[in-house]
Amino acid sequence: MLTINAERLLGELEELARIGATADGGVSRPALGAADLQARAWFKRKVAEAGLHYAIDGAGNQSAILLSDPPSDKRILAGSHLDSVPNGGAYDGALGLLAALEALRSVKEAGIALPFTLEAVNFTDEESAIMGLLGSRAVIGELTAADFARCKLSEAELTQRLRAAGLSRASMLNARRDDVLAWVELHIEQGTRLESGGCDIGVVNAIVGIRALQVTFRGEAAHAGTMPMPQRRDALWGAAAFIRRARRHVMERHAPGVCNVGWIEARPGAYNIVPAAVELALEFRHGSDEALDRMQAELTDLLQACAAEYNLTVSWEATPPVRPAVMSEAVMRAIESGAQALGLSHQRLLSFAGHDTQNMARIAPAAMFFVPSVNGISHNPQEFTTAADCVNGGNVMLQCLLQLARAGAGV
Amino acid sequence: MLTINAERLLGELEELARIGATADGGVSRPALGAADLQARAWFKRKVAEAGLHYAIDGAGNQSAILLSDPPSDKRILAGSHLDSVPNGGAYDGALGLLAALEALRSVKEAGIALPFTLEAVNFTDEESAIMGLLGSRAVIGELTAADFARCKLSEAELTQRLRAAGLSRASMLNARRDDVLAWVELHIEQGTRLESGGCDIGVVNAIVGIRALQVTFRGEAAHAGTMPMPQRRDALWGAAAFIRRARRHVMERHAPGVCNVGWIEARPGAYNIVPAAVELALEFRHGSDEALDRMQAELTDLLQACAAEYNLTVSWEATPPVRPAVMSEAVMRAIESGAQALGLSHQRLLSFAGHDTQNMARIAPAAMFFVPSVNGISHNPQEFTTAADCVNGGNVMLQCLLQLARAGAGV
Repeated sequence: MLTINAERLLGELEELARIGATADGGVSRPALGAADLQARAWFKRKVAEAGLHYAIDGAGNQSAILLSDPPSDKRILAGSHLDSVPNGGAYDGALGLLAALEALRSVKEAGIALPFTLEAVNFTDEESAIMGLLGSRAVIGELTAADFARCKLSEAELTQRLRAAGLSRASMLNARRDDVLAWVELHIEQGTRLESGGCDIGVVNAIVGIRALQVTFRGEAAHAGTMPMPQRRDALWGAAAFIRRARRHVMERHAPGVCNVGWIEARPGAYNIVPAAVELALEFRHGSDEALDRMQAELTDLLQACAAEYNLTVSWEATPPVRPAVMSEAVMRAIESGAQALGLSHQRLLSFAGHDTQNMARIAPAAMFFVPSVNGISHNPQEFTTAADCVNGGNVMLQCLLQLARAGAGV
Repeated sequence: MLTINAERLLGELEELARIGATADGGVSRPALGAADLQARAWFKRKVAEAGLHYAIDGAGNQSAILLSDPPSDKRILAGSHLDSVPNGGAYDGALGLLAALEALRSVKEAGIALPFTLEAVNFTDEESAIMGLLGSRAVIGELTAADFARCKLSEAELTQRLRAAGLSRASMLNARRDDVLAWVELHIEQGTRLESGGCDIGVVNAIVGIRALQVTFRGEAAHAGTMPMPQRRDALWGAAAFIRRARRHVMERHAPGVCNVGWIEARPGAYNIVPAAVELALEFRHGSDEALDRMQAELTDLLQACAAEYNLTVSWEATPPVRPAVMSEAVMRAIESGAQALGLSHQRLLSFAGHDTQNMARIAPAAMFFVPSVNGISHNPQEFTTAADCVNGGNVMLQCLLQLARAGAGV
């Protein structure tokens, strides 16, 4: 069975980690900033050294290309991203891209001819220095001029960064591709499910959707001394009951779905006044619209039950949801059969964080898989994945791409 | 049995309510403002019309005086206050002062000679336009120059208001009295215990002490998607558990003591971040230091139990407490025997709001009593006490003062 060059992959991971390195062992490579541009140049050199073709599209997405023989109209894409959050870790994005590059290089070196062209893609601005998932959004044709309004940079700064990378707003708006046969991404888990379960490979079956409600419980302000407790309409009592019961309900009935109350405010907000109103920010995540619909129905029932119990009223406003992205069964099976061939344990799980894969899933069969991340630490210089797990990820990527390329139309 | 002139008391309540009247039926007479000065002038005229002696001390406290025969060194004081909160009601303070005035007038008209001089006192600034309980604080000799630092008015505004009332900071600091034999105050309940229990007279056995803790639960911030719920250390879970359990614990084990969480903040405070810390403002009130000690011990045990349950830590800082004021058994009995003689039902209860009586209790036997307040509304134009209850209050005041004056040294 063909395997990757483990030392080369690990060596390149180390080499890349020196670009934008921080004093505490992390990396800082915000999209299209100086360190990211340096990493892009490094990647371009690596592609050339590997004897692969190189391309960059209007969105700045870089590709290492292994052409099929005979030439194919459709291509199988794999990869991740070189950019990082400020003071991030050396594995998030980097591992996925370098594993895809290594897989293509291994196929090329083995002299294997495949019926579909393979590409290892570095997507621009996955980590939101500009707007997040930008490169993949451009590729799937959903980037619009209006999106630049939510750019986190000033107009001048964006123009300057795009120019430094040889790009423009116009080029970004014209980066749509129609030649994607399938997409696969390797990533570190950013959680502890694999580690705590002693599992090698996590096959993502969906990237969760996110719904958020701004909730207001309303009771009646009262003097915190003179108003007897049984007669109070304390809005915080309803909110506290909800926080506890929502926690238990979601853990018991909606796992692996999750919920969070991350913000809360009691009004008027004085020691000696019974809260008249409590506002709180509730969000919940799950892998399908059906699951999210059920959660929303049950959580809003619970809001009303908690309000009624304390003689309160409750209302809520939904903020724009993030829709879940369901992964392709065929691509998941290709990942799983790769893991199996390598004797690696695997399990299906949800991705609770966003990835370029959620965009790619909108235009092609797509899936992604995780390797364990020590203590689940991510977006932090402490982020670490063992050499063995990095190599496992690279080998599963190789096997998966081989299978997808050979199955071709079967995907 | 001697009784008050009910029509005169009710007529004067109406007359007084026109001074500083608001459009919605309330009164606005912040201390030493124009309306309060007008009410003070009105009171002075009423004292003269009644043929009682009039006096004003350095703190602006006004007295109607019924001299004893023979003259007494010590005096029995009763009363309340003419000032109101902005947009307050017509009964808070006013009823207590006018009932005391009416009691003295009734004794005088009946030609009864008493062995102790009686005074009906209007205390300056009960309602905190300046600093609250100001007049009684001056009388008990606890007002210091440093107290003016916490005055809510600017220096210039305070000087102007004092001057308008013929007062100065120096005169206020020299208003201490050593001639108080006993003190009694009538007030509306500002709660619904009498109304809901169908009881005529509430005999206050203590004015509650107030303790307040600034509490911080600490857990760990985490991604609200990727961190599985069972592994979270969500500070808001501990806080919510505490709010619910403290409520039940205080209602079941410390009634009529009360507690309140009036302010809460989750940090960092974002939809998608599990709260690392939650700060909340807890206060609790009860009628004795022993009861407050028990509440504090049990509530802080509960804080620790809730923190432990969710793998959090918790700490708290106490803010300066308000000590409880225990009422005089002799004065309470004088109130009760007055009520009994009039065929009125009575019960002992705590006062959960502050009153000048808590200051007077520090220098003399003191007590206060309540008459029902419709729906417990107070500090609001809707504040209302029925004519029958106002008259009951006046008659109990009269009987109580007669008994205290006759018992004299027995108090």
